[in-house]
Amino acid sequence: MVLSLTEAARPAPKKSVALSGVVAGRTALSSVGGAELRYRGYDVVDLATACEFEEVAHLLIYGALPTAAELADYKARLKAARGLPEAVRRALESLPASAHPMDVLRSGVSALGCVLPEPLRSNPRGATDVADKLLASMGSMLTYWRHFAFGGRRIEVETDDDSIGGHFLHTLRRSTPSRSEVDAMHASFVVYAEHEFNASTFTARSIAGTGADLYSCVAGAIGALGGPKHGGANEQAFIEMCRYVSEDEAEVRVRERIARKDVVMGFGHPVYVAGDPRNLVIKEVAARLVREGSPSRLFDVAERIEAVMADAKQMFPNVDWYSALVYHLLGTPQSMFTALFAMARTAGWCAHVIEQRADNKIIRPAAEYIGPGQRAFVPIAGRSPAAAEARAA
Amino acid sequence: MVLSLTEAARPAPKKSVALSGVVAGRTALSSVGGAELRYRGYDVVDLATACEFEEVAHLLIYGALPTAAELADYKARLKAARGLPEAVRRALESLPASAHPMDVLRSGVSALGCVLPEPLRSNPRGATDVADKLLASMGSMLTYWRHFAFGGRRIEVETDDDSIGGHFLHTLRRSTPSRSEVDAMHASFVVYAEHEFNASTFTARSIAGTGADLYSCVAGAIGALGGPKHGGANEQAFIEMCRYVSEDEAEVRVRERIARKDVVMGFGHPVYVAGDPRNLVIKEVAARLVREGSPSRLFDVAERIEAVMADAKQMFPNVDWYSALVYHLLGTPQSMFTALFAMARTAGWCAHVIEQRADNKIIRPAAEYIGPGQRAFVPIAGRSPAAAEARAA
Ligand SMILES: CC(C)(COP(=O)(O)OP(=O)(O)OC[C@H]1O[C@@H](n2cnc3c(N)ncnc32)[C@H](O)[C@@H]1OP(=O)(O)O)[C@@H](O)C(=O)NCCC(=O)NCCS
Ligand SMILES: CC(C)(COP(=O)(O)OP(=O)(O)OC[C@H]1O[C@@H](n2cnc3c(N)ncnc32)[C@H](O)[C@@H]1OP(=O)(O)O)[C@@H](O)C(=O)NCCC(=O)NCCS
Repeated sequence: MVLSLTEAARPAPKKSVALSGVVAGRTALSSVGGAELRYRGYDVVDLATACEFEEVAHLLIYGALPTAAELADYKARLKAARGLPEAVRRALESLPASAHPMDVLRSGVSALGCVLPEPLRSNPRGATDVADKLLASMGSMLTYWRHFAFGGRRIEVETDDDSIGGHFLHTLRRSTPSRSEVDAMHASFVVYAEHEFNASTFTARSIAGTGADLYSCVAGAIGALGGPKHGGANEQAFIEMCRYVSEDEAEVRVRERIARKDVVMGFGHPVYVAGDPRNLVIKEVAARLVREGSPSRLFDVAERIEAVMADAKQMFPNVDWYSALVYHLLGTPQSMFTALFAMARTAGWCAHVIEQRADNKIIRPAAEYIGPGQRAFVPIAGRSPAAAEARAA
Repeated sequence: MVLSLTEAARPAPKKSVALSGVVAGRTALSSVGGAELRYRGYDVVDLATACEFEEVAHLLIYGALPTAAELADYKARLKAARGLPEAVRRALESLPASAHPMDVLRSGVSALGCVLPEPLRSNPRGATDVADKLLASMGSMLTYWRHFAFGGRRIEVETDDDSIGGHFLHTLRRSTPSRSEVDAMHASFVVYAEHEFNASTFTARSIAGTGADLYSCVAGAIGALGGPKHGGANEQAFIEMCRYVSEDEAEVRVRERIARKDVVMGFGHPVYVAGDPRNLVIKEVAARLVREGSPSRLFDVAERIEAVMADAKQMFPNVDWYSALVYHLLGTPQSMFTALFAMARTAGWCAHVIEQRADNKIIRPAAEYIGPGQRAFVPIAGRSPAAAEARAA
């Protein structure tokens, strides 16, 4: 039984987290220690302040921060990979406007895996090609589906936008985003890009461990990320901050909710205990958008709730709290917030899948059995009604 | 009654398995101990010998073996749920004939999740409705897609077949299967239905832990099952047994492969050390089909390879070895073997998701960090080429 903790500094296991603190594998991609997060040794705050998302995706997937020439080359490859095969467009067109964008994204990735399967399952070069295709085209899937489902329009997704974030805003809104808006997308994507063995990444690695293709890993990870305790928290966080007409009302109601032991989404974390280092970055992005003219009401409400949670519960906002606000200020519908998280985290997922393949292990834990002891089989004619049986068991 | 197998009875960790022997949660659904497998206390050999698959799905998902009346009711519900919504049919029609059926199944499940989303994410009644729909319609997805992709025909999937296995054979082959063929499907589905924290089930639970919907869990699990080290092994096993023109050739070649340290798919197991209890059942099903008139050559080859692996490597066939042969003898194309496994394992997956929800924990392990130490950020103008950087790291 391998129960070694990586370092003495690891905090006490969290209550609501299974395998909390249990080492499930090795990674060179990121380290989470104390209130610090590093990608391949670099502090995420530095990366989010100075880098485009594509630089960080390159760091994660290709192993190093790119030079200017390498970045230009990488961005050109991504730009060329924005298109959606005809079959994927038909599949997206079949999905209703009522669908959740995360479910659409999962379906689009899954369909793409049918149409352009990964060439050789054990070929790492194939994996990076598929990673490029996914990073480049997930935004296309979302905006293509949205315009078709809501307006019957088949938009052109092969645009000349410089970045993944800019391409998304442009194809979603049909207007070119400002430099400041694109920078906000870069920063939010950088903080969302990677986070060690979080639930969706660990899901991707569990799928990769069986030798499955990258599309299967990413489709599974999208499913995990969508849950409200994980990436889905950014949509829930936005619902939370929109509930209140003023900061004062927010304060009163949130104190009531805390007293009732309600969970306030966007606060707390399965790993961090003192604070989420990404919060500083993303809060400053939100503050900047407000300084530059975006409406300030939700920011003020969000900040007040932050203060109340600190005061009443000693809890801190995680990366999802102000990310929600940033995406709202950028004109993205709430239902797409987690899908944006997914687009960014795809960089981390793909890098982890490549790493898990190199490790060549299947992830297969054990369970503690808590069911009935050995039971003699009873043929169908001799059984009691199932409801009674199930209650007795 | 609590029957913990975690300590004494558990074998030494396997080399190629991460988290081998590490308890990642509790389950009342099945216990794997020594060379015995039990579903909620009942020996799988008894269940596979005496039960229809639907009885076992009911045991897993609803908690008890059904009475005759309950089984009739359950089967009527499943029969009524065979249909595919228009949008799912359109999505399936968009997928090419070159797609792998597991990728098609993952896409069909994902599309269904867009069209008929789970009503209330935390509502267990909702979960069983979705479980019924998935169990009933996954066969429809596969055969609908296949007939459309290969022949342009939009088949009717709402048939009057009595069972899930019979419905699959009927819609695939467009001829009514014999009683013996349906029995073979029941037995193979029963042995495939559930297996504790195997990689795909653990994937489903990891997704469920975040609060995600059942479709996301099952789509992710399909991805994991498809890998050649997991369910995909049954397709690989069939390729293995088809390689040889005779038993003698098989013997010579397999001995050469063992000497070369090749992995022979369909042998070995992440948990069992002495033998796979399901192998007895499924081998007897294959033997019965041969006794009843199916060609015997592949059976003879498979049995010889079994003997060689036992002699040369002390290894035993797992459930996938003879399952592959059974599905072939039933007229199923090799590319659909793992998809049949998925249809059966959906019973286990759904039951585990319901259990993980009740446990209310997110699955989030830790990683051992093996990457570079703290590195100062280097702005883009000052970087060395990435290839050199990545090598140095
Ligand atoms: C991530 C999460 C599951 C960790 O929960 P946990 O394991 O219970 O965390 P802790 O052990 O540190 O919890 C300490 C206490 O704070 C409470 N708590 C945790 N998160 C809370 C939240 N968001 N709002 C209110 N109370 C919370 C716990 O219930 C517990 O209370 P108790 O001592 O009165 O029983 C939880 O914080 C959560 O669900 N957060 C909201 C979802 C979210 O934002 N997820 C995104 C993470 S990036
Ligand atoms: C399941 C599996 C990953 C477990 O592998 P593992 O962790 O290495 O298992 P063990 O520790 O028991 O292996 C013992 C030895 O048998 C070898 N071995 C394991 N499975 C083998 C196989 N199918 N064929 C040939 N040799 C095999 C191992 O390489 C190891 O050899 P070594 O001692 O010379 O290094 C492996 O058996 C496998 O890949 N099997 C084929 C895939 C399959 O059928 N999966 C379906 C499982 S239901």
